[in-house]
Amino acid sequence: MSIVEPQESTLYHQLAESLAEAIHNGTFLPGTRLPAIRRCASNHQVSINTVLTAYRILEDRGLIEARPQSGYYVRGMLPSVKSSGDRRAKVRSPSSEKLDLIDAVFAAQNHPDYTNISLACPQNSDFFPTAKISRIMASLLRREPELIGRYALPPGSERLRRAIAKRSMDLGMALATEDITLTHGCMEALQLALRAVTRPGDCVGVETPTYFYLFPLLASLGLKVLEIPTDPQHGMSLDALELLLQEKRLQAIVAMPNVQNPLGFSMKLDDKKRLAKLVNRYQVPLLEDGLYGELQFCWPLAPSVKAFDTQGWVLYCASFTKTVAPDFHIGWIAAGRFSGELARLKAVSSLAESRLLSETLGHFLESGGYDHHLRTMRRRYAAQLDEARGIIARHFPQGTQATLPSGGFVFWVELPAKVDTVELFHRLLQEKICLTPGALYTLSDRGNSALRLSCCYPFDERYTWALKRTGAVACELSGLEAGIA
Amino acid sequence: MSIVEPQESTLYHQLAESLAEAIHNGTFLPGTRLPAIRRCASNHQVSINTVLTAYRILEDRGLIEARPQSGYYVRGMLPSVKSSGDRRAKVRSPSSEKLDLIDAVFAAQNHPDYTNISLACPQNSDFFPTAKISRIMASLLRREPELIGRYALPPGSERLRRAIAKRSMDLGMALATEDITLTHGCMEALQLALRAVTRPGDCVGVETPTYFYLFPLLASLGLKVLEIPTDPQHGMSLDALELLLQEKRLQAIVAMPNVQNPLGFSMKLDDKKRLAKLVNRYQVPLLEDGLYGELQFCWPLAPSVKAFDTQGWVLYCASFTKTVAPDFHIGWIAAGRFSGELARLKAVSSLAESRLLSETLGHFLESGGYDHHLRTMRRRYAAQLDEARGIIARHFPQGTQATLPSGGFVFWVELPAKVDTVELFHRLLQEKICLTPGALYTLSDRGNSALRLSCCYPFDERYTWALKRTGAVACELSGLEAGIA
Repeated sequence: MSIVEPQESTLYHQLAESLAEAIHNGTFLPGTRLPAIRRCASNHQVSINTVLTAYRILEDRGLIEARPQSGYYVRGMLPSVKSSGDRRAKVRSPSSEKLDLIDAVFAAQNHPDYTNISLACPQNSDFFPTAKISRIMASLLRREPELIGRYALPPGSERLRRAIAKRSMDLGMALATEDITLTHGCMEALQLALRAVTRPGDCVGVETPTYFYLFPLLASLGLKVLEIPTDPQHGMSLDALELLLQEKRLQAIVAMPNVQNPLGFSMKLDDKKRLAKLVNRYQVPLLEDGLYGELQFCWPLAPSVKAFDTQGWVLYCASFTKTVAPDFHIGWIAAGRFSGELARLKAVSSLAESRLLSETLGHFLESGGYDHHLRTMRRRYAAQLDEARGIIARHFPQGTQATLPSGGFVFWVELPAKVDTVELFHRLLQEKICLTPGALYTLSDRGNSALRLSCCYPFDERYTWALKRTGAVACELSGLEAGIA
Repeated sequence: MSIVEPQESTLYHQLAESLAEAIHNGTFLPGTRLPAIRRCASNHQVSINTVLTAYRILEDRGLIEARPQSGYYVRGMLPSVKSSGDRRAKVRSPSSEKLDLIDAVFAAQNHPDYTNISLACPQNSDFFPTAKISRIMASLLRREPELIGRYALPPGSERLRRAIAKRSMDLGMALATEDITLTHGCMEALQLALRAVTRPGDCVGVETPTYFYLFPLLASLGLKVLEIPTDPQHGMSLDALELLLQEKRLQAIVAMPNVQNPLGFSMKLDDKKRLAKLVNRYQVPLLEDGLYGELQFCWPLAPSVKAFDTQGWVLYCASFTKTVAPDFHIGWIAAGRFSGELARLKAVSSLAESRLLSETLGHFLESGGYDHHLRTMRRRYAAQLDEARGIIARHFPQGTQATLPSGGFVFWVELPAKVDTVELFHRLLQEKICLTPGALYTLSDRGNSALRLSCCYPFDERYTWALKRTGAVACELSGLEAGIA
């Protein structure tokens, strides 16, 4: 699968992406010389200028370097994070220490003076089609000012739900307008879904590491957590999951089969099919978090698990917060067999979403600008991820590993065991750099030397300085040298 | 207390309101002749034209009628609902029958072809300052389109929270900006507050009848309900409440001390003080629902219970949904000693409110247009309530009683015991009229012959037809004559 859609990308982008893939998957090892410009041009049937531009893109992304009089060489790569082999399945609740740490991160993330390198909060308005959205909204306000004075009721704007249903085909789903309830972002979709399918005292299986807001949410609902062994490249161990389902130890599962947060993997197609089969056979609801599903780097998009859901046991949650309009906090859920219960819960929990915002999104989706915008985002994030990984390779302690995400903008960095990333977090707060220590993302000890990093920020001096500074302080704390071993 | 603010209202409005009050409180009994125009003018030191206009306003509202060659007479009034004397305190959960009925109402309320005469869903955009709000928003979009592309975080727009804090003084509260968290409407404020202060299995004391969405919400959180005897004119029995608190039978209380939904009463000042004292002494959180607090017909506004909260045991919830912009669903909570827990729960439950919408409201509040708008709304609702009560007096079965609300736009009608209002609901659905049977608002039998009605609709032919038709079908079902006995 290529990183961009052939029908629109230019030739040099296509070439750059296929070379980047070859570097990431190890076809070209670090230190290898890339084919000479002329040869590459003739191999790919493109012009010399196209190859030169593609090589320059890869150089900017930090994947290759030019050596004078010699050619282009693949740079040293960050090793990928491998499975830890941890296979325990222990039911836990977050400790008060863990919840305090989450609080400290909440507080820091709100601070306007802090430089964020970790949080998945896009703040860079030029990543988003704000001008177009704003034109659509202004026109709606002119044509239908009465929208403001009407009381919106669930399930929400039909125009938007119809557009969502139509788009869901890109992820292999066949949803109807009436299958969808609008929610206040993906977070509310998950919250309502958990309330719809569990009771206090129930046990919920999650990937490990997982989205850290999940722990206080589960705790607030009186739910216990069981972290299912998760491979950093292939996802949740389905053998372990099947055992737990056989033993009836789980009442629900939360997973992000496409572009998992924080690891960045997408599950393999066969695993997705097996997961869908398992939850239908054992009749245990799966909350599929599809937040980054449309930001996969491949095209066509890999399907969701919901695409293989035969009896409605998969509740698919997603949002436009990461892709179109972070401010609107409009998400949605297709809750399968729980649709009725979910619509009721939405009504009594927060009633409905603004029609003005929903119709604005609906018009935007209908206009067709969304696909073009997504292509631009994917390309940008893929490039920024390479650049960030390059900086880490040069400035973080020797032995540091990082995941290679399949989409989106977050990834997982494991530093040498000597580095305590909670200590690193507190040290960097003093320098007004905000990062999220790995300990937030798991109730086990696995995350103690890990970090989640995010590339949804403008790649300016402030961001690169903060990233380099993080590496320097980590070296200082561990007494290790920087650079690839 | 007079119904309008002296500083701005015109003389004839002042006069009409003070006469309306005299009629409602029984100073002028039905059948009484009002003072002659000339005498009234000299009594009140106003012109004859002023008196004539005031009398015409009262005539339009259905409170008085002109008899040729004789003068103006007070019309027959609907009797007020009196306390039923029911003093049982029984812990209950809503039956599945009750929840099904709520579902049926949910479904009907979404139907565009139905005429609503019961639901508190303002749909009439000319009740709201939509033109001004829309101008403010368009200007924000021009000046700060990047708002759309930023990720909003809790506690929400400082501008709006500051404006809320400032306005809270009108209700006797002294809130600071940082005491306030924005929520997705008042419903989410209540939902989060319940989750913050209770655990599944706890028992929550509520007024009876009460806001009907509360029952499925409490049920969804695994909470039990205890209905506290409530006087239709003065509110919750504080003697009964104190007994329950002494016996530690309640873990939280939900109440609407100002303009209760559905009864319309506001508690007396001394009762509010006593309620605040009780919850602080017994350390049981009170969720004060202030949704209609600013729509009280009196000026200055009667204070909230939160105004007398000494140790932070009152969580005050409110919203701009009924007053400014129904579509935005922006509410807020001042959670007293539970503020920290509440902000955390908001973050993990639905993250934050749109800054674009919040800043729009903030600018609107700062502009000073809000007070003027509220005055217009109060006057309009007071007039519409009188008109609706007039229609009921003439078209509903003999023996029908109704509450006289202290503000807002909903009131409670008790029909003769022969009338089963669930049957009435189903009968009228066939004629595409949607009303809410009293059974929704209580788990006891008290509501079986009652209805909640709402005046937040345009008072057009369709509305008055539906109201008259409701009366006619009620007469048909009960075999009773229409009109005041």
